[in-house]
Amino acid sequence: MEKPTLPKGTRDFGPAEMAKRQFIIDTIKNAFQKYGFQPLETPSMENLSTLTGKYGEEGDQLLFKILNSGDFLKEVNSTELGARNSKAIAPAIAEKGLRYDLTVPFARYVVMNRHNITFPFKRYQIQPVWRADRPQKGRYREFYQCDADVVGTDSLICEAEIILMIGEIFTALKIQDYTIKINHRGILSGLAEVTGSQQQESSLFVAMDKLDKIGEVKVKEELLAKNIGEKSISLLFEILNFKGTTAQKIELLTRHFISSEKGQKGIADFKEMLTLVNYFGVPPDHIELDISLARGLSYYTGTIFEVKINTVSVGSVSGGGRYDNLTGVFGLPGVSGTGISFGVDRLYDAMEELTLFPKETGISSKIMVAYMDEESLRYGLRVVQSLRTEGIAAEIYPDGAKLKKQLEYANKKMIPFVIVIGSEEVATGLLTFKNMETGEQEKRSVEQILKYDFN
Amino acid sequence: MEKPTLPKGTRDFGPAEMAKRQFIIDTIKNAFQKYGFQPLETPSMENLSTLTGKYGEEGDQLLFKILNSGDFLKEVNSTELGARNSKAIAPAIAEKGLRYDLTVPFARYVVMNRHNITFPFKRYQIQPVWRADRPQKGRYREFYQCDADVVGTDSLICEAEIILMIGEIFTALKIQDYTIKINHRGILSGLAEVTGSQQQESSLFVAMDKLDKIGEVKVKEELLAKNIGEKSISLLFEILNFKGTTAQKIELLTRHFISSEKGQKGIADFKEMLTLVNYFGVPPDHIELDISLARGLSYYTGTIFEVKINTVSVGSVSGGGRYDNLTGVFGLPGVSGTGISFGVDRLYDAMEELTLFPKETGISSKIMVAYMDEESLRYGLRVVQSLRTEGIAAEIYPDGAKLKKQLEYANKKMIPFVIVIGSEEVATGLLTFKNMETGEQEKRSVEQILKYDFN
Repeated sequence: MEKPTLPKGTRDFGPAEMAKRQFIIDTIKNAFQKYGFQPLETPSMENLSTLTGKYGEEGDQLLFKILNSGDFLKEVNSTELGARNSKAIAPAIAEKGLRYDLTVPFARYVVMNRHNITFPFKRYQIQPVWRADRPQKGRYREFYQCDADVVGTDSLICEAEIILMIGEIFTALKIQDYTIKINHRGILSGLAEVTGSQQQESSLFVAMDKLDKIGEVKVKEELLAKNIGEKSISLLFEILNFKGTTAQKIELLTRHFISSEKGQKGIADFKEMLTLVNYFGVPPDHIELDISLARGLSYYTGTIFEVKINTVSVGSVSGGGRYDNLTGVFGLPGVSGTGISFGVDRLYDAMEELTLFPKETGISSKIMVAYMDEESLRYGLRVVQSLRTEGIAAEIYPDGAKLKKQLEYANKKMIPFVIVIGSEEVATGLLTFKNMETGEQEKRSVEQILKYDFN
Repeated sequence: MEKPTLPKGTRDFGPAEMAKRQFIIDTIKNAFQKYGFQPLETPSMENLSTLTGKYGEEGDQLLFKILNSGDFLKEVNSTELGARNSKAIAPAIAEKGLRYDLTVPFARYVVMNRHNITFPFKRYQIQPVWRADRPQKGRYREFYQCDADVVGTDSLICEAEIILMIGEIFTALKIQDYTIKINHRGILSGLAEVTGSQQQESSLFVAMDKLDKIGEVKVKEELLAKNIGEKSISLLFEILNFKGTTAQKIELLTRHFISSEKGQKGIADFKEMLTLVNYFGVPPDHIELDISLARGLSYYTGTIFEVKINTVSVGSVSGGGRYDNLTGVFGLPGVSGTGISFGVDRLYDAMEELTLFPKETGISSKIMVAYMDEESLRYGLRVVQSLRTEGIAAEIYPDGAKLKKQLEYANKKMIPFVIVIGSEEVATGLLTFKNMETGEQEKRSVEQILKYDFN
């Protein structure tokens, strides 16, 4: 018999990992709810017509497709079939695909439910997504995203609140050294304008976005290859390489953007957002204006966010921004929105690296009942149930076994307390109450144990 | 542009549904944890070699298969391709499939991790499963299961605790009129023995299991067609049709099973389980010995459970039992286990039918800040943030809009309180605090509002 295996790039999460993942997810969910976001869940599968063409050509190739049920080859074109043209045949034999992100399904939901939704609509969504990417460290084929978006308003209060939520989540996770990198599509467009590269805007942004990864020399080569002139590149890097405070950067950009309306709008939005954060009474810590930030060639039309934990190697753990055309692809134009997405798996890896998980993250019983014989088992059943009635997670070792084995079990499961019941305990009603961490034990009545504070 | 749609048999869950579903899932999860079960999550996709052959031929056909990435047709057999033999080609172009239930992935996990697991292993798992079934009322292609299983022990304490958990969950959900139907594989085998149908055991069980749905006449026809004699059938229905208390049923079976060892074991287990429930100090309410219960042709080898809500039409909402061969198919024999599964979707439908959801299940802000002008917006931002700092879910209307519109928004989102801020409020520091349900409003300072009990 073959040993069972897991599909490449997927993982099981056992009790220990689950407790930590749940801690991250609950923290994010609590913050989302505290800021007035409401939950949404969409199906794991979407029609491929909904997904295809939304993530670029590369994204389309990373979609997991679901084979049609039944006799899927019945109506497939003979010529293509004979030619083994996988690409041409795929759409005929697979009409559904797995969710690639939470944004497109959200847009689809908004369009389908637009008459019942109260706008501005603040929704959060915490679900797995799937990508047929080559698995590597920190990159999985199934992973969780936690998204919060507001649609139906262009108020910069939404951007300010995203900054507050990020701060709140990182504080709760006890991650201290992180940076919220912010840019604005207007600033990017301004850069394209002042360097005379409007016609090659997207090539410019794609190249700039790689600055962190491939370095200045290679970015310059790429820009030259895309027919952006040396003079433009030189001016561009004069701006990108400027070192200074956010205020000094703004000053520099303001000077350069004197004739760029888009650039000015970008700066104004950025300043207004910081002002709003200030009105909320929160210091604008951890914020950095990062002029090169473009987050790939995405649909952002306003502010762009990316969060990095500075002391770990996992890359960005969160990103988002404002988009104006999200629902346009589904026939509903003019819905402006802004959102943020947190990656649970990268946060998990970062927190492991920083040893930030609370020692007590395990999800297990608070107490176990161990027993010596049939009579103490019967007594123990009633004890364990009275603990549960008080809301205390409790279990009883199910098999007749030596006390040593029962205690080992409690130890391995990290159950902090054990009640031991033998004939003496049954006779006196005073049970042996053992602290598994310290090894200390004393006699207590059931009533005393029920009153113990296990939290 | 085509309007986007959802794949057949799948659903979105908007904020209102999510709150109700979350209520059910949290209730089940809390009970599982209180009884010492620990969480597990497995990937949505499994290798088809893991899934195929585990659910019978019909189940295999209901598996959603995932098309291999890239040039999936490259190595497919030409003859089969030419013949458009979908069935033969499927395994070559799809190596992964979506989880069909939580039991097989759990068995796979136990086998793969057997050296690190502390047995008895009590795990719970709450995740969606997928079946390419024909969608109909109450039957979806993606739905949630909530499973709890103990493996590595044959103690009947596990069965007794399942009964306690069912009671606890239904009490918490406020479902009162339900029945825990219980049978035992030994009793079924005993029936086969005493009616001389040992050779046609599975045909017998499959037919009996349909009694509820198709009635006595049709079951009898089916049994005759399977070569079970009239005399056997007559004796079988004498037993099945016996009306009486559980004690009377046990008495009847004991009489018939005088020479059936398996039958006697079934009765003994059932009695022992009830005794244990009694030792736990819980009255054995809602329990019914249902001699015809077989739950399809499944892998149960001991106790069999099924829970029905009596006053609704949704069918069984929960089921489970003991199995001895769960991990055997993956090369690990001798691991006995017992488990229970709850269907969130059917519980949801039942609770809707019984109008059992608490009125306040909505997940929304407790309070919204509305404002009249720029100055009161600035004031309001600080107020909303001080509420959040106190852990109160709060939001501020993001756009400059008439007060009426802001209040309508709060109303539609079922936000119970609104703070209204205008120039007078800014000047005095006494804010208008409005109860949206009663319409009452009064002036309160921020400090007073922060102290208000919103729960």
